[in-house]
Amino acid sequence: MGLDRMTFEDRPDPGAPGAGEIRVAVHGSSLNFHDLGVATGRMPTADGRIPLADGAGTVEAVGDGVTEFAAGDSVVSCFFPDWQDGTATIGDFSRTPGDGIDGFARDYVVLPATAFTHAPKGYDAVEAATITTAGLTAWRALVVDGKLKAGDTVLLLGTGGVSIWALQIAKAMGATVAITSSSDEKLERAKRLGADFTINYREQQAWGRAVVDWTQGRGVDHVVEVGGPGTLAQSIEAVQVGGHISLIGVLTGASGEVPTAALMAKQARLQGLIVGSRREQQEFVRALDATGIRPVVDRRFPLEALADAFRYEMGAGHFGKIGIEW
Amino acid sequence: MGLDRMTFEDRPDPGAPGAGEIRVAVHGSSLNFHDLGVATGRMPTADGRIPLADGAGTVEAVGDGVTEFAAGDSVVSCFFPDWQDGTATIGDFSRTPGDGIDGFARDYVVLPATAFTHAPKGYDAVEAATITTAGLTAWRALVVDGKLKAGDTVLLLGTGGVSIWALQIAKAMGATVAITSSSDEKLERAKRLGADFTINYREQQAWGRAVVDWTQGRGVDHVVEVGGPGTLAQSIEAVQVGGHISLIGVLTGASGEVPTAALMAKQARLQGLIVGSRREQQEFVRALDATGIRPVVDRRFPLEALADAFRYEMGAGHFGKIGIEW
Amino acid sequence: MGLDRMTFEDRPDPGAPGAGEIRVAVHGSSLNFHDLGVATGRMPTADGRIPLADGAGTVEAVGDGVTEFAAGDSVVSCFFPDWQDGTATIGDFSRTPGDGIDGFARDYVVLPATAFTHAPKGYDAVEAATITTAGLTAWRALVVDGKLKAGDTVLLLGTGGVSIWALQIAKAMGATVAITSSSDEKLERAKRLGADFTINYREQQAWGRAVVDWTQGRGVDHVVEVGGPGTLAQSIEAVQVGGHISLIGVLTGASGEVPTAALMAKQARLQGLIVGSRREQQEFVRALDATGIRPVVDRRFPLEALADAFRYEMGAGHFGKIGIEW
Amino acid sequence: MGLDRMTFEDRPDPGAPGAGEIRVAVHGSSLNFHDLGVATGRMPTADGRIPLADGAGTVEAVGDGVTEFAAGDSVVSCFFPDWQDGTATIGDFSRTPGDGIDGFARDYVVLPATAFTHAPKGYDAVEAATITTAGLTAWRALVVDGKLKAGDTVLLLGTGGVSIWALQIAKAMGATVAITSSSDEKLERAKRLGADFTINYREQQAWGRAVVDWTQGRGVDHVVEVGGPGTLAQSIEAVQVGGHISLIGVLTGASGEVPTAALMAKQARLQGLIVGSRREQQEFVRALDATGIRPVVDRRFPLEALADAFRYEMGAGHFGKIGIEW
Repeated sequence: MGLDRMTFEDRPDPGAPGAGEIRVAVHGSSLNFHDLGVATGRMPTADGRIPLADGAGTVEAVGDGVTEFAAGDSVVSCFFPDWQDGTATIGDFSRTPGDGIDGFARDYVVLPATAFTHAPKGYDAVEAATITTAGLTAWRALVVDGKLKAGDTVLLLGTGGVSIWALQIAKAMGATVAITSSSDEKLERAKRLGADFTINYREQQAWGRAVVDWTQGRGVDHVVEVGGPGTLAQSIEAVQVGGHISLIGVLTGASGEVPTAALMAKQARLQGLIVGSRREQQEFVRALDATGIRPVVDRRFPLEALADAFRYEMGAGHFGKIGIEW
Repeated sequence: MGLDRMTFEDRPDPGAPGAGEIRVAVHGSSLNFHDLGVATGRMPTADGRIPLADGAGTVEAVGDGVTEFAAGDSVVSCFFPDWQDGTATIGDFSRTPGDGIDGFARDYVVLPATAFTHAPKGYDAVEAATITTAGLTAWRALVVDGKLKAGDTVLLLGTGGVSIWALQIAKAMGATVAITSSSDEKLERAKRLGADFTINYREQQAWGRAVVDWTQGRGVDHVVEVGGPGTLAQSIEAVQVGGHISLIGVLTGASGEVPTAALMAKQARLQGLIVGSRREQQEFVRALDATGIRPVVDRRFPLEALADAFRYEMGAGHFGKIGIEW
Repeated sequence: MGLDRMTFEDRPDPGAPGAGEIRVAVHGSSLNFHDLGVATGRMPTADGRIPLADGAGTVEAVGDGVTEFAAGDSVVSCFFPDWQDGTATIGDFSRTPGDGIDGFARDYVVLPATAFTHAPKGYDAVEAATITTAGLTAWRALVVDGKLKAGDTVLLLGTGGVSIWALQIAKAMGATVAITSSSDEKLERAKRLGADFTINYREQQAWGRAVVDWTQGRGVDHVVEVGGPGTLAQSIEAVQVGGHISLIGVLTGASGEVPTAALMAKQARLQGLIVGSRREQQEFVRALDATGIRPVVDRRFPLEALADAFRYEMGAGHFGKIGIEW
Repeated sequence: MGLDRMTFEDRPDPGAPGAGEIRVAVHGSSLNFHDLGVATGRMPTADGRIPLADGAGTVEAVGDGVTEFAAGDSVVSCFFPDWQDGTATIGDFSRTPGDGIDGFARDYVVLPATAFTHAPKGYDAVEAATITTAGLTAWRALVVDGKLKAGDTVLLLGTGGVSIWALQIAKAMGATVAITSSSDEKLERAKRLGADFTINYREQQAWGRAVVDWTQGRGVDHVVEVGGPGTLAQSIEAVQVGGHISLIGVLTGASGEVPTAALMAKQARLQGLIVGSRREQQEFVRALDATGIRPVVDRRFPLEALADAFRYEMGAGHFGKIGIEW
């Protein structure tokens, strides 16, 4: 799928919802590295696949038996519409919107009610859409898997969507946060969001060591590893004995040299994860309602300019999320 | 031990610290229901036992091999000086200061370094002393046992030391809090500390039901049960299916009628606990340093007026902690 | 519902399965205290409710989209057909077969495929039916909630269906088991199943103390509490500091005096539970396949003699499960 | 330290135990890859370091305040004598016998009582010594970290000490086990110990795929990864979505190519670990007492022939543990 060949015309109207389904007027989405992979063909999908995993909008009608939602409700989609609760059981994208099934780059969808949750209170559609992938990934890494508590220390790599969501969640729960970037200006923005320690990794290439020093030699409790093999060695250096590294990212490649003996000596946990369950998203929404966190949307593009939005994403100049609205 | 017979003269100076020990000039303590039990003789101890489980002050000297502390450090005592880490293994007060061993109502102590942690930054001795029993109990109930996360709902009973500590911890981690009292004025104070829902249980005797309604029928995630059998039935009513009740209190008695079938039907967990380990206290101190929470000290008494302080505690007119300083 | 008024005639054939459903020829069930409550009217249900929560049989046909089962498969029902995985979310019997919905005392059912799991290999229908309620309750108490490991000590009360299942599970995982009964003959049978320590509670009324002595003063790791308030005080005495009591039973009443201060001092956990999720049942079936455990079926009755079977259950003379087959 | 330069003469007698210490007549040890690293100088230690991390023998005398042991007791050493309980806090060998401090290749030691646990009942000194490193590593991987339950599937790599201990533990708890080796004869021995599925990885180089097929496509719950980077890719392939890989080994190197994206997609956990705490060893001993497992000692060497024993270990022809006795 070439970026310039993505069109959004002539989508047939999906009609009325059947039993257990809801009809949603979609008004917003946001971009993720995964969407970019689909859009550029790096992650192959069926021909004509409608892109975009994130989707938020307004319920227009509900089918028989749907009690959780009513017409007029603001809703946001689930990355794994079949993963309702419990242990991770899905290891591929065969049922993820915008990949294995059609995504949200369209005006209307009819899907099972269980493929959505309520949107956080007061969020517009773009803001809501940022929780489907990036927000829930950060929540799961720190809170579900990491059992984050006040006073914990967290290391975040870069200022993309997952990292900035993780920064906001960590600060709302009383944690202390270090964050890296190649841009002093982005590090300043991170500070204004509460970051306690910032590292320009171009200037301080031994950032793993710098983080250890910042913790007086103890190492951090959690690392949200969005980089992959290119950053993992320093993340292992930065984590404390018995600590927790959430392995999310493939930004630096899908495979590479890893100092496994160092991970072993640290008695650290490297937890692979992809987003989370619908129940986790419901709990995340409750957390957002309670704390009043609002996501950082760097810039918004109309749906028609989706190719431009992806080009902007590739430029790596953004901070937080890139929104698509219509 | 009669309240008026507690004297604080003629304590021999404990001298210099031996290997692994520290000498601490004690300057503050705070009162707990447990101390009151010892002071009134409800909980029998050895004759002449020096009271007070909580103690905070300044390190005057450290013995051989002590690297964690240095002279001049502010420190606070541990409720279970032998419970360093890991699973609960202590079910009595045989080694608790002010009960099985001498407490902190004196000018100087020499004890193993492992019987203390650093005090939270910026705390005076009375403030620091409040974490030994009440603070760590609240932290363990919500954070260690309860795995509290942002968006969780918490029910607190009354406005004593544990409940107000729990209120502050819960709010600092993004939770939503309901709290009960018989005093509208205390409920107002709780609101100013962040309480989201307040219930005057004299006016609203079915407070368990009121809490369920407040959560739109869902029930709360956590109850910090300081009452005991007299309140447990409504606490079980208030908790959600699969929820968590921390059983801390004996304010309404040591034994009583409990609707066990209701607990079973709720699939809820009733977790007995007494304070926590030294490692948990270290993590709690880190949380206090990170969040800047300061404890609520209702009133301070000089050590000489300890009997008056206990009488004030018995009056139940206080809010938060009662401090003792010298 | 009077025991003698239960008839099993004229049930209409449920026809062919719809999408996502399976048609099952039911051939076996087993009795639980819960079924007895329904049958005797102690637990009120709708008029004409078909009894029996446990059901096992053979798949006759599968509806569209069903891939997990095929005609000819042996299957067993789930106590909570809607609870698929994850955290407990159900606190009533409104959707439990034989209570809120029709049960298995009939020849054919058509139900969602997700209301069943595969039966353990080599089990007949009565044996398979014993896992729905009693077996899964024991598995959840010890393994899911209790994280049972080899070397743990377990206390079981009586020799009913849950306790005998718990005995077999505990022994298959390397635990050490104490069990009580009023019958020396039943205790002998328990020994033959691997029980390590047996107590006739008529002779040794201080059985809680006896269990503590048996563990050299340490107390047991787990108690499977099927008694309720009448036995809970001694169960609390028997459990170790930091131990785990599964609260399952209401045999001695739905409410009663509980020494809450003792539970607190033990820092023990009292975990209410009702059976478990479908995923837990799938894992339990896998455990049964791996270990080759076969349930203890005390006696089998034909479906027509269901009233007699319930009378036999009330007599409390049985050991393990009472089967119903047709 | 050259293998032939290890001598065991002229060790001064350590004398009587001080307060909190015990004097132990050491009679057995066993070899680990870690000891080999120390002996060959691959892991540098202080000059004249007495080797061997594992040690078992008989208590000859106890110092003041020691109540856990008495003269005549059989005891076994702890790999981390300072790690008593709780979260992993040690990430190096600075306090491990035979590395950072003197080990057990001598007739008598005087050490804190907390550096030992009771030996399993009926074990001789060599058998007991095998639990210090290899046994506790396997126990922690599967039971402490892995929460192993009956019916779980386990993949073991090779037939060294950790893997064979893991095989015995897994079978005693009702799990199902696959194991690899390059020797059909060793695979036969593993089968006799209960292995359910054996793979000769010379013949079946795609052993990861073979394990997935053996589980009908599901993947295993646990992998005990003793290989390191050379085997990790296939271990990731073999594990199920949401599964657990214990990262123990460096047999194939300390660093290497790892398919991190595959680990992420599997949502699997890679848990680094080094042995465990003293409390975990106590629980492991209780499990051995309850289950009657006896370790597999491939061959025994006298202490004087320690160099020969290490050469035998390097030959990789052994199965289970190599014992040293004196």
